[in-house]
Amino acid sequence: MRATYMFSAGDVRVIDVPDPALQQPTDALVRIVRACVCGSDLHPYHRMPVSEHGSSMGHEFLGLVEETGNDVTTVKPGDLVVASFAWQDNTCDFCREGLQTSCRNGGFWNAPGVGGGQAEAVRVPLADGTLVKLPVAADSALLPSLLTLSDVYGTGHHCAVRAGVDTRTTVTVIGDGAVGLLAVMAAKRLGAEQIILMGRHKDRTDLGREFGATDIVAERGTEGIEKVRDLTHGDGTHTVLECVGHMPAYQQALGVIRAGGTISRVGVPQYTDADIGWNLFGRNLTLTGGPAPVRNYIDELMPDILDGKLEPGRVFDRTVGLDEVPDAYRAMDQREALKVLVRP
Amino acid sequence: MRATYMFSAGDVRVIDVPDPALQQPTDALVRIVRACVCGSDLHPYHRMPVSEHGSSMGHEFLGLVEETGNDVTTVKPGDLVVASFAWQDNTCDFCREGLQTSCRNGGFWNAPGVGGGQAEAVRVPLADGTLVKLPVAADSALLPSLLTLSDVYGTGHHCAVRAGVDTRTTVTVIGDGAVGLLAVMAAKRLGAEQIILMGRHKDRTDLGREFGATDIVAERGTEGIEKVRDLTHGDGTHTVLECVGHMPAYQQALGVIRAGGTISRVGVPQYTDADIGWNLFGRNLTLTGGPAPVRNYIDELMPDILDGKLEPGRVFDRTVGLDEVPDAYRAMDQREALKVLVRP
Repeated sequence: MRATYMFSAGDVRVIDVPDPALQQPTDALVRIVRACVCGSDLHPYHRMPVSEHGSSMGHEFLGLVEETGNDVTTVKPGDLVVASFAWQDNTCDFCREGLQTSCRNGGFWNAPGVGGGQAEAVRVPLADGTLVKLPVAADSALLPSLLTLSDVYGTGHHCAVRAGVDTRTTVTVIGDGAVGLLAVMAAKRLGAEQIILMGRHKDRTDLGREFGATDIVAERGTEGIEKVRDLTHGDGTHTVLECVGHMPAYQQALGVIRAGGTISRVGVPQYTDADIGWNLFGRNLTLTGGPAPVRNYIDELMPDILDGKLEPGRVFDRTVGLDEVPDAYRAMDQREALKVLVRP
Repeated sequence: MRATYMFSAGDVRVIDVPDPALQQPTDALVRIVRACVCGSDLHPYHRMPVSEHGSSMGHEFLGLVEETGNDVTTVKPGDLVVASFAWQDNTCDFCREGLQTSCRNGGFWNAPGVGGGQAEAVRVPLADGTLVKLPVAADSALLPSLLTLSDVYGTGHHCAVRAGVDTRTTVTVIGDGAVGLLAVMAAKRLGAEQIILMGRHKDRTDLGREFGATDIVAERGTEGIEKVRDLTHGDGTHTVLECVGHMPAYQQALGVIRAGGTISRVGVPQYTDADIGWNLFGRNLTLTGGPAPVRNYIDELMPDILDGKLEPGRVFDRTVGLDEVPDAYRAMDQREALKVLVRP
């Protein structure tokens, strides 16, 4: 089959690889119907060292079950399913606590022995815990929105949940990428009345407004911080949803958070050490977040999509075939595209 | 009157200063009956730059009200009162949210124009928000325990509350100083069943056991981390109460926290940058804590003391007069004394 591999920074290719096959009785084989490129795929795209054998890519997909191992009970061949960006048994203590990304038996796509989603097909470990059946046809117009349940919408939601967003909290969202925009949607859905979106790409922040942002701050650094403070009587917001992962975004978060507030991060931090001294401590700030256990949220988030009430799939502004995936990386890296949908 | 001043690292003196006087109609004058030396007083004791006029010291005291301004309504001359280590109006939005240390009109003892508690008397700003009447006589045997409400017990409690300690959480307390030991007491009071105390002073950890610690880990670094993991099936504890403030304590916290858990800090961090990269993010850890709004907790914590059920005052293992305060600093610094009570 054809599958996307990265061989070094900037070097993405779609190549022929052996077809995946069941290995464990808990596996399923899924023929991929929709996949996409993630903002986090751009991190290795910027700095992956040269690798002779490359690494398979993609961790967001939905598709049709082709075959299941003997122990799989919740999905069957022919089912349209969505996977979460981590696979898990969904039964261990961590999963039961809603922390599926720390599943005792789970793992991540593209780890050794596990393929990726930017491909024609994929072996799904722990299929019962990882796949959720979608009650629509394989050509439904809802597919783009349902695909966001595999990562970006669940991740934006996790960011808001961890921050404690509710009807009484004011919110700043940092980042106008797909996760930032869907964090806006999630915050709105959780009842936040003031949602300030910090981003400087007008087409994206315009979509953010449609998703629920009440204010847009295009400025960055101290100027951006001042703007947010102006919008909040000088106090900053109760919660900050940091959806970028770079150091300036964290510094921005520290600048716009209200005393006693919570900074929630879902952008994978591209730094190790950062300021958690008096600036964080002195005002009783909380820092939280991490890889979203999206499996925990699919059941909660899907109904609004099926009802047509929310359309997170609007973050996709380009669709490509599998062979065009390398160009999709380029387009997202150059900010020509917000998020690219892949139809293998 | 006599009052304690610090003039540089290691240079603490009790000197003659003008008697305090009412300045605002919201002030009270308090004659100090009991005060003490705080672990955090040792930070300037280690590194205060030379100061010609020095800085008044002490932020924990209880005493008798001598005089009140015209606007003071909740206390009157003759009342025995305890103060919190920050003063506040206790009416602003932050105070109403339980974040009195961020009071819009409050401040800290020993700031310019405000004296300290290691003295014969002190002017108390915003007396209605800052002082709480104690329903005991000025020679009650409960005074040491009631004095801990001004800081160390409330701070240990804040640490546990912020961490989310309850009957279902396992707890590691880092630090066997007065705050660490009272964090043990607080965690026990909130229902925690497993409380691991990390500390290497046997007399202190023995007291920690009496306060509720179920396990003592005297080792530090990787050895200490391994010990805690051994005690928790390899997982670490749901919560870590970091009651020290030095970098090795934070690193220890990262090592013993369970995925999805919360590190709560109340030791003032003596560092700025620290690891909040994948080590914190990858396991969805939460970092929280800060200066304890002890005013928020006094009403909740006092009854157990009045009933004789809990005796946080046991952290005091030495009593001195005001003129001996410099030696109290020395004794605490050299770990001869855990916490020194002052009877001016």
